[in-house]
Amino acid sequence: MAKASGVVALLTDYGLRDSYVGILKGAILSVAPEARIVDLTHEIPPQDIREASRVLAAAVPYFPAGTIFVSVVDPGVGSDRAVAGVEWGGHLFLAPDNGLLGILARPDRMVHVTASKYFRHPVSDTFHGRDIFAPVAGHLVRGVDLGRFGPPLKSLQESDLPALRPAAGRGVQGEVVAIDRFGNVITNIPGEAISDGPGLRITVGRRTLRKLSRTYADVRKGDLLALVGSTGHLEISVNQGSAQKAARIRRGDRVVVTPTRR
Amino acid sequence: MAKASGVVALLTDYGLRDSYVGILKGAILSVAPEARIVDLTHEIPPQDIREASRVLAAAVPYFPAGTIFVSVVDPGVGSDRAVAGVEWGGHLFLAPDNGLLGILARPDRMVHVTASKYFRHPVSDTFHGRDIFAPVAGHLVRGVDLGRFGPPLKSLQESDLPALRPAAGRGVQGEVVAIDRFGNVITNIPGEAISDGPGLRITVGRRTLRKLSRTYADVRKGDLLALVGSTGHLEISVNQGSAQKAARIRRGDRVVVTPTRR
Amino acid sequence: MAKASGVVALLTDYGLRDSYVGILKGAILSVAPEARIVDLTHEIPPQDIREASRVLAAAVPYFPAGTIFVSVVDPGVGSDRAVAGVEWGGHLFLAPDNGLLGILARPDRMVHVTASKYFRHPVSDTFHGRDIFAPVAGHLVRGVDLGRFGPPLKSLQESDLPALRPAAGRGVQGEVVAIDRFGNVITNIPGEAISDGPGLRITVGRRTLRKLSRTYADVRKGDLLALVGSTGHLEISVNQGSAQKAARIRRGDRVVVTPTRR
Repeated sequence: MAKASGVVALLTDYGLRDSYVGILKGAILSVAPEARIVDLTHEIPPQDIREASRVLAAAVPYFPAGTIFVSVVDPGVGSDRAVAGVEWGGHLFLAPDNGLLGILARPDRMVHVTASKYFRHPVSDTFHGRDIFAPVAGHLVRGVDLGRFGPPLKSLQESDLPALRPAAGRGVQGEVVAIDRFGNVITNIPGEAISDGPGLRITVGRRTLRKLSRTYADVRKGDLLALVGSTGHLEISVNQGSAQKAARIRRGDRVVVTPTRR
Repeated sequence: MAKASGVVALLTDYGLRDSYVGILKGAILSVAPEARIVDLTHEIPPQDIREASRVLAAAVPYFPAGTIFVSVVDPGVGSDRAVAGVEWGGHLFLAPDNGLLGILARPDRMVHVTASKYFRHPVSDTFHGRDIFAPVAGHLVRGVDLGRFGPPLKSLQESDLPALRPAAGRGVQGEVVAIDRFGNVITNIPGEAISDGPGLRITVGRRTLRKLSRTYADVRKGDLLALVGSTGHLEISVNQGSAQKAARIRRGDRVVVTPTRR
Repeated sequence: MAKASGVVALLTDYGLRDSYVGILKGAILSVAPEARIVDLTHEIPPQDIREASRVLAAAVPYFPAGTIFVSVVDPGVGSDRAVAGVEWGGHLFLAPDNGLLGILARPDRMVHVTASKYFRHPVSDTFHGRDIFAPVAGHLVRGVDLGRFGPPLKSLQESDLPALRPAAGRGVQGEVVAIDRFGNVITNIPGEAISDGPGLRITVGRRTLRKLSRTYADVRKGDLLALVGSTGHLEISVNQGSAQKAARIRRGDRVVVTPTRR
């Protein structure tokens, strides 16, 4: 059974311009002054459940055992969507049950969080982060068992992450799922699928790359390259520059790799 | 008498692009390594004392007893404006005495912070956050009594928050005080003033709404609605969209509600 | 010998839009759950080693003894550039050895960080922040001596900070090295070099200032002024406004002061 370590990792679409994140933290500390709160990011595009899932999945392996991941991207706040509490891989997860946690394969426990005695009252209809997620996270930090927060949940809403498709010539078609601050283009094609060697073709927009590099410095400054990035997926980058700008790539663009290892 | 809990909540217009906030935190930790520092927000528009007041007022109820709120929006830094230390509602507040703390009705104690032995020297003329507010906050965390920082202050500068006005037909006229990341339009009209029911009219710009919703999901995706938001004030929103964009609303725009409950 | 205080100050060009910073923190806490992590800033322009150096130098004096400064601006990640661990002034520093730490005059100890048993495996070729810098910082927090991380490093790469030049009439020519959120224009000319008094001329772009002010409030609202800013360098500002906008100044613009004190 996962034991809360006191670390609470926050993932939201609240942004840092407003004070919603600060208030969320105040509400956690009001219950559990000993919580050690870490921001995963708060710049998920508004209501973008898919991107929250992707970011969460990439981050989980790097946090200490017993981390409480509080993920609030919640277009259905105030509706009848459930709040899910999940135990998985030695960690605890709180999120609206809207597909965000669908990335967690075979959780150890799933709870429908309903025990309002752990909420902050009055519970607003628009800011459950403050009134439900934060105090519940605080009580988890304090050691309240997940089972106390409500009845078992039979299953989680499924994830809506874009699927890979087969492409001509034993290839695979994926898409650009994110572009980071540096202009690195991140795809949903796992590195293991890519068969490096003669004949390899990686196509995104009007650009085709024919080899897989190991790191940015493998090509000249300003040149485009493909590599398996830090999340284990295919990325398109420019050494000391922006692949997004250089190749005019946008999120959602199709990416095709042929042939693939299979 | 408020006992410092060790939580220090920061509210500034420093932004996160520069390192001013990081330096402020270093200066707090230099005095009180045990401080637990929380960012309320640092994206108050430069020198916007009013907005800092509004954000602070909305946040205070959600922090643990004994929080030290350090609010630095300080267009008069280096001039003869006072630094105020205030005890109110079981919390402690530090801010330039420029109206920012005028929202605190009948404080329990007010001090003119002048005891330079608690400052960091040399005190710069442009960064009192680092040289005055941070070390004083650190000493408060360490348990130094508020009274030690200077003589009593007789009164605080008054708040400059925009006032409500009566409008035709037993109505009230307020204004748009903020627009959040999601495009939610936040007004200064308190929810209690609004008389929901037949005949209700909420007018902002060229748009009129005739009912008060409970939450976003009460209307169809993309539709405009009015509700009482998480701070207890009237907000105009779009379900899963931006009311700012949909209704071309700007901060400062007039908002009229008729009739009101009175 | 510097003893780690548990405070870890982070300086990167990762930005806050992505989750790289959050993952870095998770990786530190995975090794040292007791670390107290502070963000110096993550908004260094991508790959701008110079700006990282400048920001670091300005911040160091304000942190508690034994702070571990982890600075990751790393265009050469995955290449053969070294990772440097440095003891200086009672603090510890980790950074790629690319000139970023060249600001530290005569360090007490310098180590080439190579002991991979302290890294996280597999070490990616693009995210050494997560796989090398974070776990090494965590082990430093836990008290592992700097010398354990690798062999001595003979010297650090030199800093590439722009130099001052002599100008006509016993003057000095520097440049605009940064513009902050408020539009304050920060130069690399140290305040001590400026000889205030009759005859002083400070020229930037097409604007000339003839006196040194003490603080913003010394001039009328909206007026341009020159002062020695909080980092001890000449700054050009506008009282309650933006000097950048008022005088159309850009980073890299030349600044000339005559005469100077020498």
